[in-house]
Amino acid sequence: MKVAIAGYGNLGRGVEAAVTNAPDMELVGVFTRRDPSAVKTVTGAPAYKIVDIDDHADRIDVVVICGGSATDLPQQTPELAKHFVVVDSFDTHANIPTHFANVDAAAREAGTLGIISCGWDPGLFSLARLYASAALPQGADYTFWGRGVSQGHSDAIRRIPGVADARQYTVPVESAVQAARSGKNPELTTRQKHTRECFVVAEEGADLEAIEKAIVTMPNYFADYDTTVTFISQEELNKNHAGLPHGGTVIRSGRTGVDGEYANTVEFSLSLDSNPHFTGSVLASVARAAYRMHEEGKTGAYTMFDIPPALLSPLSAEELRAHLM
Amino acid sequence: MKVAIAGYGNLGRGVEAAVTNAPDMELVGVFTRRDPSAVKTVTGAPAYKIVDIDDHADRIDVVVICGGSATDLPQQTPELAKHFVVVDSFDTHANIPTHFANVDAAAREAGTLGIISCGWDPGLFSLARLYASAALPQGADYTFWGRGVSQGHSDAIRRIPGVADARQYTVPVESAVQAARSGKNPELTTRQKHTRECFVVAEEGADLEAIEKAIVTMPNYFADYDTTVTFISQEELNKNHAGLPHGGTVIRSGRTGVDGEYANTVEFSLSLDSNPHFTGSVLASVARAAYRMHEEGKTGAYTMFDIPPALLSPLSAEELRAHLM
Repeated sequence: MKVAIAGYGNLGRGVEAAVTNAPDMELVGVFTRRDPSAVKTVTGAPAYKIVDIDDHADRIDVVVICGGSATDLPQQTPELAKHFVVVDSFDTHANIPTHFANVDAAAREAGTLGIISCGWDPGLFSLARLYASAALPQGADYTFWGRGVSQGHSDAIRRIPGVADARQYTVPVESAVQAARSGKNPELTTRQKHTRECFVVAEEGADLEAIEKAIVTMPNYFADYDTTVTFISQEELNKNHAGLPHGGTVIRSGRTGVDGEYANTVEFSLSLDSNPHFTGSVLASVARAAYRMHEEGKTGAYTMFDIPPALLSPLSAEELRAHLM
Repeated sequence: MKVAIAGYGNLGRGVEAAVTNAPDMELVGVFTRRDPSAVKTVTGAPAYKIVDIDDHADRIDVVVICGGSATDLPQQTPELAKHFVVVDSFDTHANIPTHFANVDAAAREAGTLGIISCGWDPGLFSLARLYASAALPQGADYTFWGRGVSQGHSDAIRRIPGVADARQYTVPVESAVQAARSGKNPELTTRQKHTRECFVVAEEGADLEAIEKAIVTMPNYFADYDTTVTFISQEELNKNHAGLPHGGTVIRSGRTGVDGEYANTVEFSLSLDSNPHFTGSVLASVARAAYRMHEEGKTGAYTMFDIPPALLSPLSAEELRAHLM
């Protein structure tokens, strides 16, 4: 199947790598808002203007949209769904129902198909929550993120006056993870579950105390967490904090038995050297499923909750039953 | 939906508990080869003769078949699929393709539907292997079982002359689990991955040395493992080894990036106080999906690889997207 990438940042490069390495996929190219002649792709795949994508419609089976959730995807996914089978990684959890409705309307009218909110959270973590809650309806679940770089929180720090660069790590509190595993279904506050570590490069002469205060008191992002701020040089940030590792754990503990007499714990965890490359790899597998579901005649919006898992794999149903079951 | 249970052993009792606690399911009763008047169900659900099940066809939506994989299910599942939507937990991995073909033929001809090999391995562990390999096509996976009771291995010991009772625990070797997690994709032999602990009650005057030798040299079951045999009293076995706990871990480590420059690890694990009750709970959720897939017009055989995950949950698609995504 022929795959196009819309938007060429870290995530776009992740999809590029995954599609290039997939035996059953061909990368048509990347479509960008930038001047294509200024875009050098990692694999040498061609770059085109995003506004010209309709001209390539007859040689594209699926478009993987790699924009941001704040402003890009709410506009791009419904728009591109008017002409293409699309996949995105929309991750603003609270707005998923609205985004779903918008993509569904566009895709139904056009006879196309869109699978939204794919990746690992939302995505594989959502699936872990769903499977675990189906198997253990009486229970509670816990999601821990990290240790890993939160790009949104890093960006928020960089917007503070006097900050030249920053990297923020989200760190699960080990005692909270253990409590979740215990089967006692504890109530855990935001502060109990995660800490936030900030590595900040200040501009010359900046007021470090003011920067630190601005970070630790920032509503939503940091105020509800135990946050540490460490000032480092740009050199050190480049040397020790260049990567985008991430990961996390979903834990559900629940009871079985007529009277809930048996305890059970289900746990799903990820440890990723590169968040965007892993997310990109998941998106590539979802592109395969989107293509197959559309070939089956399905239209409208879906999430990973609706994908028969076999459709994600390049292996046939027979091979999967024989080797992975 | 109205659910019947065929076969009433440990697994049947697990399904009974799960169906009884499900808000959207009604337990029609258990169907048994024994004299129904001699069967006392945990919840007071009625017991019937299995040979009479066709008489109850109009008040059964799904039959969950709880027989053994060695001789019961290969015969029962295709037979019951002639008149019912069925679910089973057939777990002889090597024979899944044959069993699938038999159930598929029967269900297609009858216009029914069967979902085979459900539970946790095969089942949730199969799904973990599939999702992880779709996300990380370049990699290797490892499945560890335990610490938990293997009923098949316990039975094998009980068949040795001089053995009155036995309980066998499968135990993963922690260093092998760590090696699998390391991302180095080590080759691990059977012996390196698991040990087997046997707790044996000998008959009075039995030759303990002969029993121990018969166990540790038993082909397929024990010869390829480091096996320990501990003789205990029936009292101690009843007191300390009455339960059927189990669990395990699926680990896949794989590389992302154009040249595989990033390491990643995906891990799914279960810790279960009662293996049959957890398996029964998974089967109940699959019964829900089987009913829904058949209502959608699907017929033939399927596995959990073919189930859109949302169908396993009592929650609506809208609720799932709003709360679990």
